[in-house]
Amino acid sequence: MEVNNYKVIFKVSGGEEVVVFAPPGESLLETAKKANVAIDAPCSGNGTCGKCRVKLLSGNAEGGNERHISPEEYVEGWRLACAVKAVSELIVQVPDVAQAYKSRMKVTALSESRERAAFEALQQELEDMGFHGDSGLELVTVHLKQPALDDAMADQERLLWTIAAQTGKAAGISFFAQRKLPKVLRESDFSCICVLRQEDGAENRILDVMPLGENGGGIAGLAIDIGTTTVVMVLTDLKTGALLAAGSSGNGQIRYGADVISRIIQSTRPGGRERLRTAVVDECIVPLIKGVCHTAGLQPEQIYRVTVAGNTTMSHLFTGIPADYLRLEPYVPAFFQAGSLRGADLGIGVHPDAEVVLAPNIGSYVGGDITAGVFSSMIFKKTSFSLFIDLGTNGELVFGNREFLISCACSAGPAFEGGDISCGMRATDGAIEACAIDEETMEPHPTIIGPAGQKPVGICGSGLIDIIGELFRCGIINAKGQFIREGKRVRQDVWGIGSYVVAFAEETASGRDLALSDVDIDNFIRAKAAIFSAIRSMLVMVDFSMDTLEDVYVAGGIGSGINIERAIRIGMLPNLPVEKYHYIGNTSLTGAYAMVNSRKVCEKITEISRGMTYLELSSHPGYMDEFVAACFLPHTNGVLFEHHG
Amino acid sequence: MEVNNYKVIFKVSGGEEVVVFAPPGESLLETAKKANVAIDAPCSGNGTCGKCRVKLLSGNAEGGNERHISPEEYVEGWRLACAVKAVSELIVQVPDVAQAYKSRMKVTALSESRERAAFEALQQELEDMGFHGDSGLELVTVHLKQPALDDAMADQERLLWTIAAQTGKAAGISFFAQRKLPKVLRESDFSCICVLRQEDGAENRILDVMPLGENGGGIAGLAIDIGTTTVVMVLTDLKTGALLAAGSSGNGQIRYGADVISRIIQSTRPGGRERLRTAVVDECIVPLIKGVCHTAGLQPEQIYRVTVAGNTTMSHLFTGIPADYLRLEPYVPAFFQAGSLRGADLGIGVHPDAEVVLAPNIGSYVGGDITAGVFSSMIFKKTSFSLFIDLGTNGELVFGNREFLISCACSAGPAFEGGDISCGMRATDGAIEACAIDEETMEPHPTIIGPAGQKPVGICGSGLIDIIGELFRCGIINAKGQFIREGKRVRQDVWGIGSYVVAFAEETASGRDLALSDVDIDNFIRAKAAIFSAIRSMLVMVDFSMDTLEDVYVAGGIGSGINIERAIRIGMLPNLPVEKYHYIGNTSLTGAYAMVNSRKVCEKITEISRGMTYLELSSHPGYMDEFVAACFLPHTNGVLFEHHG
Repeated sequence: MEVNNYKVIFKVSGGEEVVVFAPPGESLLETAKKANVAIDAPCSGNGTCGKCRVKLLSGNAEGGNERHISPEEYVEGWRLACAVKAVSELIVQVPDVAQAYKSRMKVTALSESRERAAFEALQQELEDMGFHGDSGLELVTVHLKQPALDDAMADQERLLWTIAAQTGKAAGISFFAQRKLPKVLRESDFSCICVLRQEDGAENRILDVMPLGENGGGIAGLAIDIGTTTVVMVLTDLKTGALLAAGSSGNGQIRYGADVISRIIQSTRPGGRERLRTAVVDECIVPLIKGVCHTAGLQPEQIYRVTVAGNTTMSHLFTGIPADYLRLEPYVPAFFQAGSLRGADLGIGVHPDAEVVLAPNIGSYVGGDITAGVFSSMIFKKTSFSLFIDLGTNGELVFGNREFLISCACSAGPAFEGGDISCGMRATDGAIEACAIDEETMEPHPTIIGPAGQKPVGICGSGLIDIIGELFRCGIINAKGQFIREGKRVRQDVWGIGSYVVAFAEETASGRDLALSDVDIDNFIRAKAAIFSAIRSMLVMVDFSMDTLEDVYVAGGIGSGINIERAIRIGMLPNLPVEKYHYIGNTSLTGAYAMVNSRKVCEKITEISRGMTYLELSSHPGYMDEFVAACFLPHTNGVLFEHHG
Repeated sequence: MEVNNYKVIFKVSGGEEVVVFAPPGESLLETAKKANVAIDAPCSGNGTCGKCRVKLLSGNAEGGNERHISPEEYVEGWRLACAVKAVSELIVQVPDVAQAYKSRMKVTALSESRERAAFEALQQELEDMGFHGDSGLELVTVHLKQPALDDAMADQERLLWTIAAQTGKAAGISFFAQRKLPKVLRESDFSCICVLRQEDGAENRILDVMPLGENGGGIAGLAIDIGTTTVVMVLTDLKTGALLAAGSSGNGQIRYGADVISRIIQSTRPGGRERLRTAVVDECIVPLIKGVCHTAGLQPEQIYRVTVAGNTTMSHLFTGIPADYLRLEPYVPAFFQAGSLRGADLGIGVHPDAEVVLAPNIGSYVGGDITAGVFSSMIFKKTSFSLFIDLGTNGELVFGNREFLISCACSAGPAFEGGDISCGMRATDGAIEACAIDEETMEPHPTIIGPAGQKPVGICGSGLIDIIGELFRCGIINAKGQFIREGKRVRQDVWGIGSYVVAFAEETASGRDLALSDVDIDNFIRAKAAIFSAIRSMLVMVDFSMDTLEDVYVAGGIGSGINIERAIRIGMLPNLPVEKYHYIGNTSLTGAYAMVNSRKVCEKITEISRGMTYLELSSHPGYMDEFVAACFLPHTNGVLFEHHG
């Protein structure tokens, strides 16, 4: 039987056209994914984020006349790709998704003190622990004897002989340096500066050579945090641990779905593994590296050591190692510890012989972001019991002390990083990161990241906690997240969806209303419920009560700060004294930063990872009940939050 | 002042056009080189080889109406690019030089017994010496415990743990194998075959993994000889040393000149280093590797070990390491021993972690082809004195015994490999490799390489020795190489150039006369004079007489055999008893073959190279006089050849 497929012509950026045949009933988002046409779709087709907008230029389609599209936009041809289906031949304009990433890409010299503070505090702690200055890399200046007719030893042997005599240990030389050596020696009167890496084996290794006077200042290392939603990196001087530059961008894999399961499924399709790898490496990491190097006045090849922390799926997709089996019983990763990778293996444009160290995974759902993060939190050193919570697209928990550490994972979704929320965004310029609401007037008092006068662009994780907490406190929404008051800022659209306008069109950067709908609130409630129920279930499984917790460390790129009181009020975090809580920022990144500066840190993290136990929450009989009970503000069991409710 | 340059449009293969502006008086060959337009020019513009033919399509040019162009061809527009200069805007058709290489590219299963013989004899000798089966690579079959929910160890750790237990030594895994592992394990019920490389350090290394049943037969290694004129390779099974396939082609760098000095100069121009590297790697080595692998039924990634022998310039240009200083006083190479190179560094398409070992250089003009060749000749083991002669584009000599070895080099030019000779060619199908001439009738009796009925295409090195030796013996040419008899086969053209027709048009493959001109003979005489005078000078310098030579080993791709008696007759080799001579073929290749099969051979060659002394012939006051005296048949000093003269 022949199926009557519809011809769809996607017009993408740069004037290119992609022609594909869509079976009846398939959404344009699905059709586009198969044809590898990039459409920004953080909610992966759930119809919640409203970001997969496309414009019909000709032909007939049904659906897509959805609440995210205004009547005017509908007339112009705008539809949500996830909701619209071809019923004739179509020509479809696709907005440039690369543009969307680029607009989210940001490189700074990291001058803002509050961002530096976390690194500087950690660096101080590492120095106190003796974990510093052992990246294994050093600069060695050598002066060679000039060759002559009666001393025609080759350049390379001349250098290696001198280095061995000078350092007391033989050395090999990387191919990269071999190709530079003859000219460098002759530019600098047969003297040069070598970047030398200490090795365990019989020989150290010369990674680079340069004329005297060049790069006398330092040796650069790079720490990367690859999050499901966001990629962040810092460039550091390995001699001092000083920060040289920082960069962040959205993870280009977002078009293949917001969560790790969607990404894994996409990666198993023909060519998918390479597409997913390219989406994060070529579209995000490589341009970010160029950006941070440009800011620091370096070439990418001058990065001699790289560390990467990411969850297990991200570390597989980054390396192009099959992630297929992560989601299939018995949930076995391809690797825990990636082993000795080189810059050239990974195509990231740094020095080809740079050692690239991935923070070790401990299971399919607890990965390097957590092992690096646990190190950074220092809970592994304490005698008292701590809880470490990483609020990312996946939520991960680690409980324990210096004697034992137990971890588990839950799927929170991207809401904490602004995904899956119609007006969500990451914690960068324009994000509402905090907000009080006047109970009387229902007027908001937002705090916006950025320079004075910055207009709001969206709401980041900490802002969502605040606004939802305040909406609940002011009685604007009920325990189910439904709107129960009326007013200028509370409205209901033609589909019966209620929303709260945080900023009116004339106040925002986009010129459109910035509003939080009850669908957004519902998404957020499920995210916070996932976290809270995971905490409860884990403690029950190991038979500890909440009271044993001396400290709770909250990590994640949720915002530059988090109002713990409001997070407790909405039932996201346990009702403990506020002073027990410590917001410690992006510990995946700070852990990677500690790793790049010190090999001892890497060894310590490996040791921590080997000792960590993984609990599978889904096998805990009470977990689903806990989750359902937590899908209220603050919780169905009000006793748990009686000081806040 | 504005120079009135002429616009030249080169039409090259594939219909592409290259537009360039030529200053008045510049040859089209020069103009083409600057524009990176490939023209086959083995004599590098000396006007002797007659191979740089181009066809003028429009415009006016002067020169190029040269003896290599017939009047009919001249009318059609054919010119020699090295001799023709633009005097107006020109459109020039350039024959496809890639085609010329391709036609010279040859891959075989190496079934011909006379080619196999040298390898089999060497292999036997290596086994007797205990230099075999130690390539460091082995196949290990492992059976892993299946993972389960209560045993979710990652694939990689599961493999490494099992290998360590099974072999008694820890192992790391190459990135290439990491990416294959998860699927291989699940295709083969968690068993697999590993290609394991033994390492000196704490860990062996898994280079590859494959499902049970695949490649149970062997592990492939590749030995490459990179000659200035010719590239040759053999694929071998590292378990047995058996030959799997062989391939050869012209060196694509030929368009940048026939000798190493021209190549070095070209490599120092902007972009030149990469152009020279590409010309030999991408145009010759990579396609040959594909060819030999196809013949053997392997993928190039299944080559796990590679050895390369080439002269010092070739080893620099192959790796892309600057060769600039080789030709400048004090003649210092960038490296003697290239160190630990990997397949991926060199872009040759083999396993990215394959170890690539270059035979060590000992100076700017004695390189890895000689150190590998000396090993292959076994002269380093003898108590008696031997002379090793490598007849390549450079001629190199090594003299000595187990106590000492002395080497020197001379520039013979490409004549021995058929370059710089109008009808010259390499020793492949269609080459006249031997030839007797009837003194009475002056009729030739050639022996042609190839199947019965093969028509002659050209003359290879051994054929040239024969023909010139016979022309001299029969009194057809005098001691200066000038024609002194007349007849059907001896003619003189309008430029006064005499020639001997070895085969008339109707007998040849091309349908054109195959003739040796007195210019060719003169080129050849200078090549043989370079060799002979070098031998004499070297022995004088170290104060040994010819009589001390017990054995003379003649190596090189000059032909599958060489008639020593005729070589002595023309004064190319010293007048010693014929039984002292041994033609031992391409020892650069057989040496590389020994190296790929055995790490001990590599160590031995390094040891030999460190002990070898290099003599600079040009600093020997008598060398030029020796050379001039040797530019006769057989020599100005007839006493040296009194049994042959």
